[in-house]
Amino acid sequence: MKLTGQSIIGATRVTGQGDALQAIDPANNKTLDPVYSSVQTQDADRACELARQAFGPYRKTDAETRARFLETIADNIMDLGDDLVERAMAETGLPQARIEGERGRTVNQLKLFAGVVRSGRWLDLHLDPALPERQPPRPDLRSRSVPLGPVAVFGASNFPLAFSVAGGDTASALAAGCPVVVKAHPAHPGTSELVGTAIQSAVESCQLSEGVFSLLFDAGHKIGAHLVAHPAIKAVGFTGSRSGGTALMAIAAQRPLPIPVYAEMSSINPLFLLPDALADGPETLADNYVDSLQMGAGQFCTNPGLLVAQKGPELDRFIEQAKKKLSGSGCQTMLTPGIARAYQASLKQLSSVKGVTTLVQAQKPEGDNQCQGALLSTSADDFLDSPELQSEVFGAAGLLVVCDRTDQMLDVIEQLEGQLTAGLHLTDKVDKTLAQSLLDALELKAGRLLVNGFPTGVEVCGAMVHGGPYPATADGRSTSVGTRAIERFLRPVCYQNVPAALLPAELQDGEAEKMPRVVDGVLQLGE
Amino acid sequence: MKLTGQSIIGATRVTGQGDALQAIDPANNKTLDPVYSSVQTQDADRACELARQAFGPYRKTDAETRARFLETIADNIMDLGDDLVERAMAETGLPQARIEGERGRTVNQLKLFAGVVRSGRWLDLHLDPALPERQPPRPDLRSRSVPLGPVAVFGASNFPLAFSVAGGDTASALAAGCPVVVKAHPAHPGTSELVGTAIQSAVESCQLSEGVFSLLFDAGHKIGAHLVAHPAIKAVGFTGSRSGGTALMAIAAQRPLPIPVYAEMSSINPLFLLPDALADGPETLADNYVDSLQMGAGQFCTNPGLLVAQKGPELDRFIEQAKKKLSGSGCQTMLTPGIARAYQASLKQLSSVKGVTTLVQAQKPEGDNQCQGALLSTSADDFLDSPELQSEVFGAAGLLVVCDRTDQMLDVIEQLEGQLTAGLHLTDKVDKTLAQSLLDALELKAGRLLVNGFPTGVEVCGAMVHGGPYPATADGRSTSVGTRAIERFLRPVCYQNVPAALLPAELQDGEAEKMPRVVDGVLQLGE
Repeated sequence: MKLTGQSIIGATRVTGQGDALQAIDPANNKTLDPVYSSVQTQDADRACELARQAFGPYRKTDAETRARFLETIADNIMDLGDDLVERAMAETGLPQARIEGERGRTVNQLKLFAGVVRSGRWLDLHLDPALPERQPPRPDLRSRSVPLGPVAVFGASNFPLAFSVAGGDTASALAAGCPVVVKAHPAHPGTSELVGTAIQSAVESCQLSEGVFSLLFDAGHKIGAHLVAHPAIKAVGFTGSRSGGTALMAIAAQRPLPIPVYAEMSSINPLFLLPDALADGPETLADNYVDSLQMGAGQFCTNPGLLVAQKGPELDRFIEQAKKKLSGSGCQTMLTPGIARAYQASLKQLSSVKGVTTLVQAQKPEGDNQCQGALLSTSADDFLDSPELQSEVFGAAGLLVVCDRTDQMLDVIEQLEGQLTAGLHLTDKVDKTLAQSLLDALELKAGRLLVNGFPTGVEVCGAMVHGGPYPATADGRSTSVGTRAIERFLRPVCYQNVPAALLPAELQDGEAEKMPRVVDGVLQLGE
Repeated sequence: MKLTGQSIIGATRVTGQGDALQAIDPANNKTLDPVYSSVQTQDADRACELARQAFGPYRKTDAETRARFLETIADNIMDLGDDLVERAMAETGLPQARIEGERGRTVNQLKLFAGVVRSGRWLDLHLDPALPERQPPRPDLRSRSVPLGPVAVFGASNFPLAFSVAGGDTASALAAGCPVVVKAHPAHPGTSELVGTAIQSAVESCQLSEGVFSLLFDAGHKIGAHLVAHPAIKAVGFTGSRSGGTALMAIAAQRPLPIPVYAEMSSINPLFLLPDALADGPETLADNYVDSLQMGAGQFCTNPGLLVAQKGPELDRFIEQAKKKLSGSGCQTMLTPGIARAYQASLKQLSSVKGVTTLVQAQKPEGDNQCQGALLSTSADDFLDSPELQSEVFGAAGLLVVCDRTDQMLDVIEQLEGQLTAGLHLTDKVDKTLAQSLLDALELKAGRLLVNGFPTGVEVCGAMVHGGPYPATADGRSTSVGTRAIERFLRPVCYQNVPAALLPAELQDGEAEKMPRVVDGVLQLGE
């Protein structure tokens, strides 16, 4: 498919009148055609207005229509074939297997939400039938979830498919019945255009209002800020930096009508190596840790950036093996030249903090924009003294915090900011009291707790929580991955004594029974 | 029970060192003993620190313990007997039947949440068992809801029991596993102390940590602001004015770690009288409307402050009857002298807006602080021109918006701010297209839609939504009344490959099956 360099505003292609932007292949610093043009605020207004107009009919589509729309997007993405894979590889430096895997995840995610829509659980039906004899009589009360309205979605750099134009935010918002206006991430405009075309083509073939989807390009931050402030926009999905996320939160809070921002921002995903796990096999642990740290050049929200362990001969063996493994590792290309520069700078900053030692670095980079993995170390006391050691280094850098005693681990947790994940490594011989107290404390700091694993690799399912207390996300009450991501874009409405002919279809007698529902306080399954 | 005038900080009574405050009987402007003293910020810090300490053990109490605690609070409130009823009447000017009814609601609400805790639905269990053969293998993933942490609750003036110290916010927060620090409403300190004593006594007899509950008095706003900014506080429940609510929202958004504020603020609860309903019996409709408008001196969040109807002879009959009914009505005492003064002032302001006519007022007040009900009128065109006509007048004042044509009703809705409720009056002969288009539009503006009823009277049940888009509430995704109020104080946590011995009890095999849960995407009932 030929790329146009244009934004997609409803059914129309628009050439922006603002600054040019162009993708760069980070593997060789070559710019990639075509040139994309930044839209201006009136273009964003047009996309928002189309989304507002589309919201009325789109939110009333039945489950089957909406599910098929999501499935059509998935099919259209697959139909893009190698064009998509090749363009995404060129724009991100990510290898083919990764891009193909991510495409699979993206497509499966869309299909998963089709199933969510059909299941009707998201409607959260509650029925409290009238009690005319009671004093005072109880009216007939029924409630269901309705979509919030048009959602602004910000594509992320690190998942050009699964967290970008047709990623989890878009899929869950569309599933909820919300039109979506995507601000494309400027690092992968071609990938964005391809996927945007797949979505808009599904809008057309499913005969939906054109405003259900728009895709805007902008080299800077103006259009994103304008979207978040726009009266038609009712919620925001964002994955990116802490500074970016908090800026959007501030704009949203200052609107005349504030709206929720679901920003997934930063996390260093602490892992605690308990003494028994270190004793059991420090070398294997070190190998697996370095693999997780280096995966995707460390460019995951769930990258394990913090290791906490007690000093001793087992930890020394762990460090020895980690040094060996990492120093023998090559480097991977990072997503953009800017990210590669930022990695170097944050690593330098981290290593210059008082008490921090660089234990080992991977092999010297041989190409452009490569991430030279690094493992650094500090004492628990120094860690507790230096809050800046919690700043996320986006890339394959890990900080080992060495405790004198295991109870210092609790002090470390107490000081930790909110995280997406936190984990323990332990064996059958673990001190259960210690493990339990660590888990108890970590539960207040993270959205996902894992044992004997590494946080990279996020399953898309019902039990997944990809969220966590601020600043891991803007709103720790939600998840941006898994079926429950749809809940972010819904609110409940109650219908009191509304006659059957005027009730929403799914609340009518004979229809409501087909869905899971709570009747008079008792949960019942769909029939 | 003898009142002490002291704040309750955990198990300790504390005499504040700040300004004095004293209740006033609004029926006669007499001050009521004892004198209460405002606490200072260090006292609030102590309450927050105790709440923080209590959170650890309290959140781990089992369902039965927490349910019994809520039931014990209910029993203790009933045990206060006439002392509570008399004091609440004296402090609010509300009649005995109303106070007794509200006590019943408060106690039933606590018992309802005991049932909610036992039902386990609030845990929102999701289980995705391990798939070791899949490539890549899926780990064992289980998720449940956990409480956010200590909650600051602000008592409301207009429901001295049901939305105050042991009201819906406190009941749902305690049910969720969150300790509560209440900032008492200064208008009913004696009622607050009595109920606070009932709660703290339940804390003691249920052998819970003292910090599970504290009650602070303050004549001003300093302590409330301090609570919302305190690092130990993780969420806020508030019912009150728009200025108060937005001030707390701003404080919460500016914290280093922002927290959710659930503020229920202002609503004028529009009612649309469709032509067929007016034709069917304008006199009965007028009588019922005036009754709802005057109920409790109009001091309900759901008071029907806005009526919208089409001009014509039926509306003239409605107006005639409303005039007759209201002009023959006496006045009721308002909650406080300040509220009575504010009612006069806002009514004067409303009636002076261009195009607004005062149709009728109730009989002249004969006592102190009485609310003289009023019905005003304006045209749809003037209403659309004057956004200030949407300002809530707290009290028994209604504004009738007269439309030339029914399609102007849609213009009115388009312009409306977010509301708690909105309603239609109609008959079997209604123009269904019109009714449907009004309901569709109102659904985007309100949390509860009602037909042929009046919004006053809020049922406490599963289907109830007492919420609505901003500025009706700070967060239209939630309800402050009914069982789903507990959702405001929870967030999900996922457990990945956590060994059984370290899993929370309700997620363990053999226990999880007892609860409703979603297994591999399929909802299952508890066994």
